[in-house]
Amino acid sequence: MASYAYGIDVGGTTVKCGLFQADGTYVESWEIPTRTVDNGKNVIPDIAETIKKNMEEHGLTRKEVAGVGIGVPGPVKEGGVVDGCVNLGWGVYHVAAELSVLLDGIRVEVGNDANVAALGEQWRGGGQGYRNVVMITLGTGVGGGIIINGKILAGAHGAGGEIGHITVNRNESIPCNCGKKGCLEQYASATGIVRRAKEVLAANTKASLLNPDTVTSKDVFDAAKTGDEAAVSVVQFAGRMLGQAAATITAVVDPDVIVIGGGVSKAGQILLDAITKYYASNAFKACKEIPFKLAVLGNNAGMYGAVKMVLN
Amino acid sequence: MASYAYGIDVGGTTVKCGLFQADGTYVESWEIPTRTVDNGKNVIPDIAETIKKNMEEHGLTRKEVAGVGIGVPGPVKEGGVVDGCVNLGWGVYHVAAELSVLLDGIRVEVGNDANVAALGEQWRGGGQGYRNVVMITLGTGVGGGIIINGKILAGAHGAGGEIGHITVNRNESIPCNCGKKGCLEQYASATGIVRRAKEVLAANTKASLLNPDTVTSKDVFDAAKTGDEAAVSVVQFAGRMLGQAAATITAVVDPDVIVIGGGVSKAGQILLDAITKYYASNAFKACKEIPFKLAVLGNNAGMYGAVKMVLN
Repeated sequence: MASYAYGIDVGGTTVKCGLFQADGTYVESWEIPTRTVDNGKNVIPDIAETIKKNMEEHGLTRKEVAGVGIGVPGPVKEGGVVDGCVNLGWGVYHVAAELSVLLDGIRVEVGNDANVAALGEQWRGGGQGYRNVVMITLGTGVGGGIIINGKILAGAHGAGGEIGHITVNRNESIPCNCGKKGCLEQYASATGIVRRAKEVLAANTKASLLNPDTVTSKDVFDAAKTGDEAAVSVVQFAGRMLGQAAATITAVVDPDVIVIGGGVSKAGQILLDAITKYYASNAFKACKEIPFKLAVLGNNAGMYGAVKMVLN
Repeated sequence: MASYAYGIDVGGTTVKCGLFQADGTYVESWEIPTRTVDNGKNVIPDIAETIKKNMEEHGLTRKEVAGVGIGVPGPVKEGGVVDGCVNLGWGVYHVAAELSVLLDGIRVEVGNDANVAALGEQWRGGGQGYRNVVMITLGTGVGGGIIINGKILAGAHGAGGEIGHITVNRNESIPCNCGKKGCLEQYASATGIVRRAKEVLAANTKASLLNPDTVTSKDVFDAAKTGDEAAVSVVQFAGRMLGQAAATITAVVDPDVIVIGGGVSKAGQILLDAITKYYASNAFKACKEIPFKLAVLGNNAGMYGAVKMVLN
């Protein structure tokens, strides 16, 4: 009788592990380091070991564990094959099969970390109560995840929800990390917001609270909240890029809600206001009323989404 | 023992009806007029009557019919509620429930016509053999449908796959039929191609095979095939808008294949070549190799997709 499950979120420095009851009740969580040496060959064995140890502590047998869900920082194709994780040193790697073997056949489901975080927010976070959720994660880069009828839209090549690489500016001269030019990520990530702030400050003739040498994304939002003109213009620009991209996304997948997460989303309502202003004027009529909400699970979203893959 | 099913495609002037075996084998098809008088109140009863008549002809009992799938020209929400069909005079209308009652409880599934045609092409047409298909239908307008793991992505408001209303030009001054400006439909529909041809011809100083007073979308492609400079530029422009939009769509849903259908797609390879040229330079790297194929079922796609909704 399977009454427990594990949710594992593999990051570049730590692996977050969570034990849940099979009805979704959270029991406990812990972290282990991500050992990326030797092309990350220890990562999966380390996870198997920590799960086995936890099972032992709780006196759980293999049959009492419904499954292990795991989110990894790279594209995941059907059947749980990871198609390279640069941060971990992995190439093409059948994570689901290997981890399942190491756990004596316990069911393992693997997903891309951004997609898995979106599932977590849909299940227990900002998208709770909705079946169709688009999550946009604004961190160092811009990630995304799309949940349709409560399931991850993984995509045929593991690129479902790669909305940071929607082109939003066809006049960009500087390439994105992906090689294209004008990607959403270049304007709405923390990095992109800082870059824009520096550009605006360089061209600015008025006083600003922002210091071009040390400005962070948080500084920009803090200054914008006080009405600082340069900061407001940077926030509006990021909001316009996000609002336009969101209007495109909703015309394609028409979700119930859009959840905004990641470090930049800590800015809160001022960010949502900037996005929704431009969203409304760009959205297809049937999608105009789709609400935007802030993510609530923070760094735990991946662990929640991971375990959700093996519940149901 | 359910051994048959019906696929029904409701158009503005005729209703296409198909009888299939439950294993998907086509048996026969016929048409009845779409009686749009009195806000289309006869449409569903007429369909019930023609199905009952067909069942009688084949000596089929209610239990021998697995279901009736029906595609309608309007947004369809969960549970088979149609949220208005302008062409038929319908407002909010619970099509699935009404038709099922008229057919003594036979299962009925309803979908938007563009989505249902996409399902048809995925099942038996240009997308055959693939689980994840984006279909772009280039007719008087631009429609679309998205199939994920063999199922229609209908959307929370029935607007899934409304890719004709992705904004591809932020400098447009003329509004689209939807009220927005710069929608894909304004450039890649038959209407949009004619409009562009007239603009190009008006500004053109060289000789062209195209007559600005009578030019059709077909004329443009025919002339482009002979190398007519004005026509080539119109085709390239439509290809660019489609290629850029397709790159955006694939970064969101990452399908196995994109199928191009509708009247404009009869242009064939020259259209695919124009699209793929601009697609490749705009697509996210993991999606660059996604193939483009022509639709093959023509006006029968809706009937095939409709019946597919009740098979499985």
